[in-house]
Amino acid sequence: MRAEIISVGTEILLGHIVNTNTAYLSKKLAGLGIDLFYHTTVGDNPPRLIATLKAALSRSDIIITTGGLGPTVDDITLSSLCGAVDRGLVFEKGIEKDIAQYFKNQGLRKMPDDAKRQALIPRGALWFKNPVGTAPGILIKHGRKILIALPGPPRELVPVFETGIVPYLSKKGYGGEWIIKTKTIRTAGLVEAEVNKIVKDLLSMGPATTLGIYVHLGQVDLKITTKAQDEKTADRNIAKIEREIRKRLKTYIFGVDHETLESAAGYALAAKRKTLAIAESCTGGLLANRITNISGSSKYFLMGVVAYSNKAKTSFLGVPGKLIKKHGAVSKEVALDMATGIKNLAHSDIGIGVTGIAGPSGGTGKKPVGLVYIALADARGTMVRECHFIGNRQDIKHQASTAALVLLRSII
Amino acid sequence: MRAEIISVGTEILLGHIVNTNTAYLSKKLAGLGIDLFYHTTVGDNPPRLIATLKAALSRSDIIITTGGLGPTVDDITLSSLCGAVDRGLVFEKGIEKDIAQYFKNQGLRKMPDDAKRQALIPRGALWFKNPVGTAPGILIKHGRKILIALPGPPRELVPVFETGIVPYLSKKGYGGEWIIKTKTIRTAGLVEAEVNKIVKDLLSMGPATTLGIYVHLGQVDLKITTKAQDEKTADRNIAKIEREIRKRLKTYIFGVDHETLESAAGYALAAKRKTLAIAESCTGGLLANRITNISGSSKYFLMGVVAYSNKAKTSFLGVPGKLIKKHGAVSKEVALDMATGIKNLAHSDIGIGVTGIAGPSGGTGKKPVGLVYIALADARGTMVRECHFIGNRQDIKHQASTAALVLLRSII
Repeated sequence: MRAEIISVGTEILLGHIVNTNTAYLSKKLAGLGIDLFYHTTVGDNPPRLIATLKAALSRSDIIITTGGLGPTVDDITLSSLCGAVDRGLVFEKGIEKDIAQYFKNQGLRKMPDDAKRQALIPRGALWFKNPVGTAPGILIKHGRKILIALPGPPRELVPVFETGIVPYLSKKGYGGEWIIKTKTIRTAGLVEAEVNKIVKDLLSMGPATTLGIYVHLGQVDLKITTKAQDEKTADRNIAKIEREIRKRLKTYIFGVDHETLESAAGYALAAKRKTLAIAESCTGGLLANRITNISGSSKYFLMGVVAYSNKAKTSFLGVPGKLIKKHGAVSKEVALDMATGIKNLAHSDIGIGVTGIAGPSGGTGKKPVGLVYIALADARGTMVRECHFIGNRQDIKHQASTAALVLLRSII
Repeated sequence: MRAEIISVGTEILLGHIVNTNTAYLSKKLAGLGIDLFYHTTVGDNPPRLIATLKAALSRSDIIITTGGLGPTVDDITLSSLCGAVDRGLVFEKGIEKDIAQYFKNQGLRKMPDDAKRQALIPRGALWFKNPVGTAPGILIKHGRKILIALPGPPRELVPVFETGIVPYLSKKGYGGEWIIKTKTIRTAGLVEAEVNKIVKDLLSMGPATTLGIYVHLGQVDLKITTKAQDEKTADRNIAKIEREIRKRLKTYIFGVDHETLESAAGYALAAKRKTLAIAESCTGGLLANRITNISGSSKYFLMGVVAYSNKAKTSFLGVPGKLIKKHGAVSKEVALDMATGIKNLAHSDIGIGVTGIAGPSGGTGKKPVGLVYIALADARGTMVRECHFIGNRQDIKHQASTAALVLLRSII
């Protein structure tokens, strides 16, 4: 079974909204074992929509449209569907009843006249109740193909799809033969090209199981996707390649799926019953923010100081003014003193100090924007790393906080 | 001029990522007066991508692809472009030099062999430097049509498009008779229904100029969109409705377009030469992070303390242990003492204290998840606000930091 999605709406083509429906539907279809080959977005233009529908009918078995089911004249999906499959619109009393009920629930005694338009559906089509709006889901059987029209707002599309379309597709035996399952292996500490070199031969295994590389700022994800006849086979396929990846990337792997560097570091701190305190300069609170995004972080995170001014560094963290004068606020020496200073101040097991230049201003020839020193102090001693990051102010802050978390994880 | 966008990537068709590039490019093209008629997404499949490119060439003047420019064998955009316009790939020394420099900046002495693949471009194509990555932007002239290939990661796509493609399109006279211009008026302090009530009559003016309401956590944006024959008319259309909105919403408006609450507050602090220090508990560094996202914030932001443990609150900010015991760490009294404590400690003009329960655990019947106290201290005295937020841990942190910025702005 091959499917494709057609999103209808000039507002999408103008960039006024980000289309999240397609990502949602894509994931759902993969889960049902239905292959998705195309997404297309067209504006509120009947000839272009009809042409797109006809192209879709020529190459796919299931065509899903989203949007354009509202009560206004701009809403052209159903009339275009009629054009593509050569049918007329008929008035459906059951839908009118649902719409009237909807308005009654909303506290409106009388249904607006426009709303009645939404009770018109292509002759012979099935319709599926919309529990949170007035536009029902529509399904047309056309030869061996089916066309499905869903309302555009995500809060309406999701319940119509889940309560109406999914049970229909399952009952009628669409998809089902194959399921697609994915698992993401998350790494940090290597750049994309290095990870690529290590797993290169695994990237073109296909077709049942594939591996993809996805890069974020300072992180590289490996996504395993498998197509299998059942859950068990899918899990076995994934486990096989995951074992191989783990053998090669070892401790560069910090988690899977929804795990983050901050949750991995937090988990390790909690497990070893270690406490943490941090002193940030250029990351400006971002590192503390990421650490405290983890529920339960109050167990191991004692305090953070955002020492933006030199005075905060000296009078607060005990970094000697002379040291700052001699080496500059952005230096190995100051990073180390910040780490030790906050560790002593908070009586924590581990202290982190971060100082650098996030830009866009403040850089010099010797100390360019993107230069960041990250220091760690614990009972065993101290260490410091010099990093060079590229990007805008927020990119540099993010990469610096990621590098600090990578370093932290490596010593717990 | 008719344009269309083709997004390349199986990960999009599997729903693994939400495609934000198309919304960004759509908006940019509208601003250039270039009509966009289609978005299409195809997987990493050369025959399907070539077929899509050929269909696009048959109906559009400007074709923009996103994604599939990486160094791996999965990256098929350039070879497919070559297939669609019947050209070969050639090695471009200038790109190799840029890539080598990129890796040098990243601290890698040697460029990985695979990375060299990204220096291969279609014969006769132009290329545009990628300031934050290794895949350059590519532009092919094909008869009277042009094909543009952009890297997939938004943080690379945006600078390549803005620094390379936009100047090229403008210089070469692409762009159309009509331009579409938008301006966003940003408000905070009112909920959507309140804003809606105030501007309701302006929402259905159309068709040349329209107004839309967009809601974020703790903020409501009003987006003015106008279609006009020239910049001047567009500006006049926008100014007319903006005046009306400003008359009605007054100080609830904190900025326009890319301005944020943190930039507005920072601007006000700098103008009044006031300094700020903050003590955060439940926001965990997010408030400091937002404030320090603004370039130049070191002028007014002296320091922040993330006082996560009670000990940090007492021994550091001078909040009496008795006070915490009597009222609890989440209380008006403690918030006020945190604000005064950090103000005294940092010798700043203004101090902020935030304490609350971000959840998901830690709530009680009397003090539920989402309860947050925000206090301010300055030369004139102190104030405190009790807030109740709904959402997950990060939503609550975000709303609390937004409310703190709204309060800060109101007293500067």
